[in-house]
Amino acid sequence: MFSEYQHLRIPGPTPISPEVQRAMERTILGHRSGEFSKIFGEVLIKAKRLFQTNQDVLIVAASGTGALEMAVANLVEPGDQVLVIVTGVFGGRFAKIAKAFQAEVLTCEFEYGKAADPEQIREMLVQNPKIKAVFATHCETSTGVVNPIKEIAEIVNETNAVFVVDSVSALVGMDLKMDEWGVDIAVTASHKALGLPPGLALIAVSQKAWQVIEETHSTRFYFDLKAYKENAIKNTTPFTGPVSLVFGLSTSIDLIEQEGLENSFARHKLLRDMVRKAAIALGLSLLVENDQDASCTVTAIKGDERFDPEQLRKVLREDYKIVAAGGQQHLKGKIFRIGHMGYTHPMDILTTIAGLELALKQIGYPVELGKGIKAAEEEWLYAQNIGK
Amino acid sequence: MFSEYQHLRIPGPTPISPEVQRAMERTILGHRSGEFSKIFGEVLIKAKRLFQTNQDVLIVAASGTGALEMAVANLVEPGDQVLVIVTGVFGGRFAKIAKAFQAEVLTCEFEYGKAADPEQIREMLVQNPKIKAVFATHCETSTGVVNPIKEIAEIVNETNAVFVVDSVSALVGMDLKMDEWGVDIAVTASHKALGLPPGLALIAVSQKAWQVIEETHSTRFYFDLKAYKENAIKNTTPFTGPVSLVFGLSTSIDLIEQEGLENSFARHKLLRDMVRKAAIALGLSLLVENDQDASCTVTAIKGDERFDPEQLRKVLREDYKIVAAGGQQHLKGKIFRIGHMGYTHPMDILTTIAGLELALKQIGYPVELGKGIKAAEEEWLYAQNIGK
Repeated sequence: MFSEYQHLRIPGPTPISPEVQRAMERTILGHRSGEFSKIFGEVLIKAKRLFQTNQDVLIVAASGTGALEMAVANLVEPGDQVLVIVTGVFGGRFAKIAKAFQAEVLTCEFEYGKAADPEQIREMLVQNPKIKAVFATHCETSTGVVNPIKEIAEIVNETNAVFVVDSVSALVGMDLKMDEWGVDIAVTASHKALGLPPGLALIAVSQKAWQVIEETHSTRFYFDLKAYKENAIKNTTPFTGPVSLVFGLSTSIDLIEQEGLENSFARHKLLRDMVRKAAIALGLSLLVENDQDASCTVTAIKGDERFDPEQLRKVLREDYKIVAAGGQQHLKGKIFRIGHMGYTHPMDILTTIAGLELALKQIGYPVELGKGIKAAEEEWLYAQNIGK
Repeated sequence: MFSEYQHLRIPGPTPISPEVQRAMERTILGHRSGEFSKIFGEVLIKAKRLFQTNQDVLIVAASGTGALEMAVANLVEPGDQVLVIVTGVFGGRFAKIAKAFQAEVLTCEFEYGKAADPEQIREMLVQNPKIKAVFATHCETSTGVVNPIKEIAEIVNETNAVFVVDSVSALVGMDLKMDEWGVDIAVTASHKALGLPPGLALIAVSQKAWQVIEETHSTRFYFDLKAYKENAIKNTTPFTGPVSLVFGLSTSIDLIEQEGLENSFARHKLLRDMVRKAAIALGLSLLVENDQDASCTVTAIKGDERFDPEQLRKVLREDYKIVAAGGQQHLKGKIFRIGHMGYTHPMDILTTIAGLELALKQIGYPVELGKGIKAAEEEWLYAQNIGK
């Protein structure tokens, strides 16, 4: 009966709204048809508002890592010096891609669970004036850290380096004012806060970035941004575009704009605060201790001598239909992660917390049933100004 | 963003599984096509197992009341004496239909919230030996009462009367052994525990009932059971059948049989017990005081001087996305009802209870947040033999 029933609480793919699901079920169109071009052109314009930019936003059929590579491939020639800010697995991935493109990669690494310190980045930039590009992760999905993009942008903008932001698991869930803050390239992917299946990535490119791209002669073909720009002017893609995902994206953006970006940020913050308050009430330890550094889209909770996160995840999934994520790389087996982005309502968080209480109880963790729910409910009432 | 988001917790229509949804999206077929007849014939056989019968089960395009009328229309001639057991609105509806067909209607009425007493029915039958048919409601949807169908059947079977059971909101959620208990006609509808949209009704007919139907000359055309029987032999319907709902029903029965009828009954009982325990923990009053009389598919909770059920329902729906039902007729404004049948997982009940706690708090009811969840969680753990 319930083999497909689940509450998908990993940090992407995320649940899909019925509106987006239906939009994607629209009769498929040819990717070069006039009908599709009309929709595609409208989506390219609407998507700018998500990045809060008036500059170019392009769409590519790829998942998040494809979009990261697209940024690197268009900015980095062999031997170019770049700085990668590493606060977890996905910062590390940026560094790996840059190395694959034969950059001279400098890294500014921070302890997992801590946000990047802008002052250390300033120091690196001062000491290495040849740095051509700085790569940062907005939300570090592997730890649930949000990095201070606005502050880092200010520092990078004191130099000639272009500033590239991986906002894959952040955009729409947390603020990113591309133009106002001075971000040069920002990328995101469909299966996070946009609430679509994986397979579509968005890349926003500033005028400053285009100048660098123009002068950069690197190995690129599928990810050649100039080809996407030239085709976008004609409301099409250089290669076959992800037609159904574009239908879905159009509806997804409409839903986001119905809610309003500011309201979306506030909702994601509420979801985070509900999860964090519940975890603390249940005596659990948060990987990101500082609220200010905690992502509004994903929360990592540490295992300890009282429970094994992998055993917890198994029980959560099998008995309580809650699918949580585990830790990655050296955090494997040490944390579990709850995604709370996109088409996620505060009620879904209460469902998740209820499942968490039961699963903890089942594996022998000393839990007082109802205590996590109480904390999460209080947080929600507080956010609504109820019962203050 | 969340305009379609809701937790539908009325006693039908009920949530639809993705499996059933997809099945209904199958390309439509002609209702007289060989392809459809093959599916229809298989469904008629599979449906017998839901009623635990080897006798005929027929399908009609109608909602529940249509199926009730079908039973009456084929058994009642003007002037026939019938007995209707009334424990709420839907028992009352059976009486109304019988009156519309000019029967001499005797009723055995019970206080709303109480189950029928078989001994009173025995007395009525003894005193009125001409009673041709007895009509009973299995689950009285308006109050959440389950009537003792097995016991009533025993009593009716001591007479020549045919025994008709409205199992619209009960079948699959609670046991109904049509053949073993001696029920002559049992009806159900698609939008309850079968987890389909409304529009399809099932009617199971015993050999004894067919004999009475054969001799009954009443006003009927669309609901003429003999026409359905004659066509069912040829795997078709006398009039246009509800093709897509039949696709869905086929998958619905497969899912029910994957779970197993006994497991389905146990799950529905758990859902009931979770709701009842949570309500009591929150200091609420149940309309059906006695556990044994309480339906496993719907629970009615009484308002009192501390809260108005209609205000509660409004807040539940608007702020917490839980759609509960109100009271009907003289119970309007006095109770609210939570449906828990069909494609409903225990996690859904926890979600509902969390919403209930918040809505109660919001309207000023003295609620201790988390207490209802704790009680429901404990009930579930108990049912799983966890933490005993």
